[in-house]
Amino acid sequence: MTDVTEGLRREIPARIERLKAVLRASGIDGALLLHAVDLLYHSGTRQNGALWVPASGEAALLVRKSFQRARAESPLAGVRPFPPGRELSSLLSRCPRIGVCFDVTRVSQLDWWRKHLPGHEFVDISAQLRGLRSRKSPAELEQMRLGGRKLAAVIGEIPSFLRAGMRELDIAAEIEVRLRRAGNEGSPRLRSPNLELFTGLVVSGEAGAETGAFDGPVVGRGLSAAQPVGPSERVIRTGDAVLVDYTALFGGYLLDMARVFVVGTLEAELTRAIEVSLAIQEEIVPRLVPGEVPAELYDLAADRAEAAGLAPYFMGVGDDASRFVGHGIGMELDEFPVLAPGFDEPLEEGQVVALEPKFVFPGRGAVGVENTWAVTRAGGEKLTPLADGLVRVPT
Amino acid sequence: MTDVTEGLRREIPARIERLKAVLRASGIDGALLLHAVDLLYHSGTRQNGALWVPASGEAALLVRKSFQRARAESPLAGVRPFPPGRELSSLLSRCPRIGVCFDVTRVSQLDWWRKHLPGHEFVDISAQLRGLRSRKSPAELEQMRLGGRKLAAVIGEIPSFLRAGMRELDIAAEIEVRLRRAGNEGSPRLRSPNLELFTGLVVSGEAGAETGAFDGPVVGRGLSAAQPVGPSERVIRTGDAVLVDYTALFGGYLLDMARVFVVGTLEAELTRAIEVSLAIQEEIVPRLVPGEVPAELYDLAADRAEAAGLAPYFMGVGDDASRFVGHGIGMELDEFPVLAPGFDEPLEEGQVVALEPKFVFPGRGAVGVENTWAVTRAGGEKLTPLADGLVRVPT
Repeated sequence: MTDVTEGLRREIPARIERLKAVLRASGIDGALLLHAVDLLYHSGTRQNGALWVPASGEAALLVRKSFQRARAESPLAGVRPFPPGRELSSLLSRCPRIGVCFDVTRVSQLDWWRKHLPGHEFVDISAQLRGLRSRKSPAELEQMRLGGRKLAAVIGEIPSFLRAGMRELDIAAEIEVRLRRAGNEGSPRLRSPNLELFTGLVVSGEAGAETGAFDGPVVGRGLSAAQPVGPSERVIRTGDAVLVDYTALFGGYLLDMARVFVVGTLEAELTRAIEVSLAIQEEIVPRLVPGEVPAELYDLAADRAEAAGLAPYFMGVGDDASRFVGHGIGMELDEFPVLAPGFDEPLEEGQVVALEPKFVFPGRGAVGVENTWAVTRAGGEKLTPLADGLVRVPT
Repeated sequence: MTDVTEGLRREIPARIERLKAVLRASGIDGALLLHAVDLLYHSGTRQNGALWVPASGEAALLVRKSFQRARAESPLAGVRPFPPGRELSSLLSRCPRIGVCFDVTRVSQLDWWRKHLPGHEFVDISAQLRGLRSRKSPAELEQMRLGGRKLAAVIGEIPSFLRAGMRELDIAAEIEVRLRRAGNEGSPRLRSPNLELFTGLVVSGEAGAETGAFDGPVVGRGLSAAQPVGPSERVIRTGDAVLVDYTALFGGYLLDMARVFVVGTLEAELTRAIEVSLAIQEEIVPRLVPGEVPAELYDLAADRAEAAGLAPYFMGVGDDASRFVGHGIGMELDEFPVLAPGFDEPLEEGQVVALEPKFVFPGRGAVGVENTWAVTRAGGEKLTPLADGLVRVPT
């Protein structure tokens, strides 16, 4: 076990206490956590089962499979095999009002619990859970720094293999194999329904301006209507904007970053748009401090895009453009806070955002920059350490 | 667009008609499909939105993003932008009883629809949907044959790079990069909550006997408690059983297969267990015909394991052993039918199962075989064409 992993494990009891405090403040008698990521955060294991956290009293991790592994992985005292229905009812008997994350729980799952716990009221605690998770501890930030260095190192290797004539898919394969050897654990976890991403995007030329279901400014063509996001078989040509946008998962924590590459020379307007992206990043990063308002940072970015005459291309095109310039990231890719209209809760120390000012030019390509930043009192701390700006690869 | 893709598109209207017939037979006025895979199957696109299929009348695909792409991808006539709430209520006004898949729909999603469609009753149609999807059409089988040849070709290359001294993770990376170059679209879609698999398993020696949350006989150590499935950093040694179990996704359809490799010589009992796995496969495959009962095929496999003196190792160890010997596969990895106790509905032509007789020896390793088979009148058709049996790699 690494020092970072041990540090994360040591935080579990404090996480449970923070959750209990939130439950008491909301007048809820206990939380029933059923989603793997919510279990992992609050118990240190994502084995299958349910984590019961009463507002007062000891948490119980009820394990379906594997009990043995859950007990080895979790520092909690109350790890036990999943009990029969009547014991569940007795365990929760003094807690009429139970919090469940309605955003991730399936209807059939909640129906099962309603049947086994008649007389209880179930209320949604999704927002509270997401709020708790948005503030990262020092150990979480250290895990993200480790992961960010690994992801940035792989993105830094791209000029060594990117050539005209390769398919987007070939470049993706080269990135993914390097990430995997470095220990990438898998695809990004996404909390929202129907959001899917294998690991990242390689999009080039006009394929970079393809719109689609994925909830981001850049989507890509993908390989078929069945998986319409990410790299396609399009062949990279000299002069194409090649936007590479990748996630990686290390020790349960995600990182997210993007850079633009070109073989030869990029057309002037797209080159200028990258400079505008960098200027937006440069202006927002010092304001990633506690107290700044996410919605205002979005407005600032949109204003700068407009002042540069690039409003029609900012964060996508037309009705399909994204209305955010950054998103929270941690155990999931779609965490709080979002730098978007409506997000008026001030930033807090320890929050982490992927800031991604991007421009999409129909028929021509997608450009921009993305890094993962921690909110600190001194401004954003870059967790994805690599030079920003257009990367030119010789023809 | 390939011929196969075009063939799949042409089936969409017939799939809608089959769904309508099921709704009428169940006394349900219409189906509201919200899950991306369910949309894809019934509309030809997995853009974001909802597919409304009335028991009588024209289907409407209501698209949030991207409308343009959904219209290009779907052969349905009724593709339209997602309407405001009052239009939804008018669209569904004559349909008081609405079917929704409770197994995949989030509580918050259903609450949204309940709010916008007051006075309607929502009932679960998960089992009906899964039943419809379990029988593959000729075009679906052709797509799976194409995918199976690609997956089998990559698994066939393993002896060219597998060496003692590599980590499980290094072998996984070599497999995954080859699958990706061949067009693998991503991670397997899993319908059950909290099931996650990046793409496959490489497990070796005693790490092959690690139990865990994943719902299968073999799990692997994984890279951390955050992703406790699949390859670890364990180094392969001469004589280890190296079980490689991979999925691949082509054109929206999954394939699944496993083989065992050894550098040098495998111990006698594990070698014999592979032969028992092959004998079970050989006995079941001719019975993958319409009319055979899945539960009886499971019993047959369990009986053969017991007769061979291998019952304690069959499909896992102790309480964590899996109670199935095969699973349906198609757009999702956990489809119907399951070759398991309780599955008494006879097999039907066109169903596809991944048959995976395996044995797990604590402290020593996991072995077996897995192929994807279509149910035909002449017995199972192998969709993953590669020699079965232990593969020996010279030291």
